[in-house]
Formats: sequence, structure tokens, C-alpha cells
Amino acid sequence: MTDAPATVYLVGSGPGDPELLTVKANRLLSDADVVLHDKLPGPEILEAIPEHKREDVGKRADGEWTPQEYTNRRLVELAEEGKTVVRLKGGDPFVFGRGGEEMEHLAANEIPFEVVPGITSATAAPGVAGVPLTHRDHVSSVSFVTGHEDPSKDESAVDWEALADTGGTLVVLMGVGKLPLYTQALRDAGMAPETPVALVERATWPEMTVATGTLDSIVEVRDEVGIEPPAITVIGDVAATREEVVDFLLNRSDDTQSGAADR
Amino acid sequence: MTDAPATVYLVGSGPGDPELLTVKANRLLSDADVVLHDKLPGPEILEAIPEHKREDVGKRADGEWTPQEYTNRRLVELAEEGKTVVRLKGGDPFVFGRGGEEMEHLAANEIPFEVVPGITSATAAPGVAGVPLTHRDHVSSVSFVTGHEDPSKDESAVDWEALADTGGTLVVLMGVGKLPLYTQALRDAGMAPETPVALVERATWPEMTVATGTLDSIVEVRDEVGIEPPAITVIGDVAATREEVVDFLLNRSDDTQSGAADR
Repeated sequence: MTDAPATVYLVGSGPGDPELLTVKANRLLSDADVVLHDKLPGPEILEAIPEHKREDVGKRADGEWTPQEYTNRRLVELAEEGKTVVRLKGGDPFVFGRGGEEMEHLAANEIPFEVVPGITSATAAPGVAGVPLTHRDHVSSVSFVTGHEDPSKDESAVDWEALADTGGTLVVLMGVGKLPLYTQALRDAGMAPETPVALVERATWPEMTVATGTLDSIVEVRDEVGIEPPAITVIGDVAATREEVVDFLLNRSDDTQSGAADR
Repeated sequence: MTDAPATVYLVGSGPGDPELLTVKANRLLSDADVVLHDKLPGPEILEAIPEHKREDVGKRADGEWTPQEYTNRRLVELAEEGKTVVRLKGGDPFVFGRGGEEMEHLAANEIPFEVVPGITSATAAPGVAGVPLTHRDHVSSVSFVTGHEDPSKDESAVDWEALADTGGTLVVLMGVGKLPLYTQALRDAGMAPETPVALVERATWPEMTVATGTLDSIVEVRDEVGIEPPAITVIGDVAATREEVVDFLLNRSDDTQSGAADR
């Protein structure tokens, strides 16, 4: 005789500030029997979860990543044992997370689940840096894209030319390393070299850093300021807004570095 | 002698479920002297704010909208009176809100402010409906676009052809009325008529409704199911995921209607 499986909650933790967790995420973290997580929610959020509940499915002791298949299996196993599980994911589970794959695996195994959205860093990082993603007069779209892919490869799934043609704001996630490649791809696609660009590292974390420049200068700015992953890149006229407002923007954290990089 | 002005918090309320407010938004709503809001945060969130703190800058008694200029001025006025103000905006302040304009006005008037991100319905609605926005195997970008503009007008700021060319998921906000126009524009741009489409009305509200179809059928589905604003439209292969998982998706609210519309 088998009991009905418990529920799995696919929960977004937001960009890193524990106060940017939702009320619901907090309640579920309290009530869960087990919290499956990797490092992306950030140390402050993870430390607040009782250690006996935590199960790290991120990097293993031998330095390898836990395969996605293991996480999928483990979610099903715990739910079948009757344990209420929170699968805690950085940002939002469905925006460049792999919550979609986990959800499909749960459904295929007849495990009830619920999706609890979180604030993706793709919107939070520009926000706290004073960069609005849209503007009613001149920006009607915003595109989020992963910077992990190599734009010089023929098989690159990202069409930088089409993205440039939208005329909207572009937000690149995980795009610190390949910044030279996609800024070049966007210039090749006809985007103006003076297009404003902002880099936001560890948005809402205590050590947040912001640097601004143009499509032409941002690689140099990145190197001077020392921007490192995780960071997001905002490309478009809206990125220049920060300079207009930054003197009155509170909680902008490590802004001296940004000031140095503003040009 | 003038005292220093108080701080204005530009706060996102999330998609409507009070439990999807952030911990920070809740704290600021408690501590604020005045909460300036329109109707977009939804009735459950607004009713939880003590009435003496609330100031509605949405629709006026005569049925007209309060001009943005009035809201801008009022924010400055209250801060200069020393009152801590929360400007509460539906979703996220900077994703098709007009938080950018309010922020610029505050900075121009030397009022200190802080941006508190919220969950935009552009990510929350697909999430709770069981539709992941990206997929590592076949979707590397997602674009958010406003459906308010008329795609048949030459001066339309939205380039539907470029958006179709990105090959990524498209999320249209405020796009119930113009659904026939932009689905046609996307088909004209070469998008396959069998591309999956999902409509999510009032995501996370008690009366949430979901309907699914294809680029070809979705206008008919909208009319049959009776989808009304506010709703978001998700266009792309990911929209078909819902059908695979919906039997095990909890909290999907008014799903009988969706079932009827699934085809």
C-alpha cells in the first residue's frame, strides 16, 4: 500500500537579498521537510534555512556539478517518501532556471507540484541600479537572453541581429565572460557604438557593484572595475538613466566603483 | 529652514496574490506614512493597507485617469512634508510600469528614493500556469512586449518581425484586445500557425483563468473562453508544456475553463 506523495514546491528565491523573498517563499521554507538548493540563492538566504533541512544539489565535493537527472530523481524520491519539498532556485524558477525540466519530470512521475514565482535578477538588477527596462516614449519591448552561448559559433541559438532589430532594451544574463563577443555581434548588426550599457554584479547582495559605459567602451570598463560573474548586462538607451538619478538613489551599495566607471 | 525630505520607495506589488509581495514590500507598507497606488496591485493587497494611509492616484471619480504629472508632483510634495511614501505599483515598477518617469522626477527634485523590485506578471503568469519561459535545449531568449500598440500602424514602435526572428519565447502584456492584430503580424513575419499560445488572465488572483491554443486558433479560444484584460499572452513552443503537466499542477485555480479551451 502506498501513501499519496507529498507536494514539491518549485520556488524562486529572488536576486539574493533575503528581504526580496516573497512572503509565500518564506512560509514554504518554514514548513518544508527538505529544501533542495544549489548556491544561486546566495549565502544569506541559505544560512537562514535550518541546516537539517538543507540538501545541496549544486557543486559536489569533487568539484563536479550534480547532474540535473540526480536532482530530478531526488525530488521524486523525497515526495514519494511523503516529504514536503521546496526546490529553491535563484531568481525565478522559469527564467533561465531549469524549473521547466524539473516540472516535467515531476508530472511524468505523477508528483503534485506548485510553482512559486520569484523576482528574476534580470528585472531586479536593473531596478536597484536605477535603470528602468521600458519607457513609454521610446522602449516598447525588453528581451532577456543568455550570454553563455558563443555568438561566433554558427550553431549559436541566439540571433543577436534579430535582438538588435527589435529596438528594445536587451538584458543579458550570465554574460560577463562573452561580453566582447556579443557587444561585437550587436555592433555588426548595426547597433550604435554609443548605445549605453550597464553592468550589475551581485544585484541586491551586500557586495553589489555597478559599472556603466557604451557598447564601445564597456569591455574596458568591465576590466577596469573588475566586474565578475554573476552579473547582468543591460543594453539600450535606458541604461543611461542611472547617471541622471544616482545621486538620490539609496541602497546603491558599492557605488564608488560605479562612479569611477561612469564616463 | 527646511528639513530634509523623507524617502520615496518605488515598490512593486507583484502579480496580485498578497503572498507574492516581498518581505520588504510588506515591511515598507507597514512603516509608510502614505501609500500612493492605483488599482493594479489588486483588491486583496490594497484592502490590507490601512485606509488612512492610502491615496488612490488611479481612476478619478469623473472616470478620467489621474495625469502622470499629478502623481509625480504629489510624490515630491509628500516627501518634502517629511512623509515616508510608498509608491505601490502592480508587478515590477520598471517593467511596463512608469516607475522610470517617477524616479527621474524624484531625482530632478532632489528627493531620495529607493527601488524595491516586485515580480512582474510577465514572469509570474506563465509560471503559475505551468509554462516555463526558457528551455536550455531550444529557447535562449524571451522578449516582453506591450500589446497596446496597433501593429497595423506604420508608426508602431513594436517590430513584430524582429521579435519573431529572435526565435525565443514572446510574452505580450496588455494584449487581449489587439490579439488578432499581432498574431496576424507574427504569422506575416513567418511564424508557424501551429505555434503554441497560452493566455493567462488575472494570474495569481482568485479568479485566474488560463486558455491555450495556437497562433491560428487563439483568437477563437479567447472568445470562447471569454478571456478579458488584464491578461498576458505567451507565444512559443514552451506554451505547450502546460498540457503535459497540468494534471499535477496545484493552485491552478479556474482550470475547467482552460481544459475546455485546450485543443
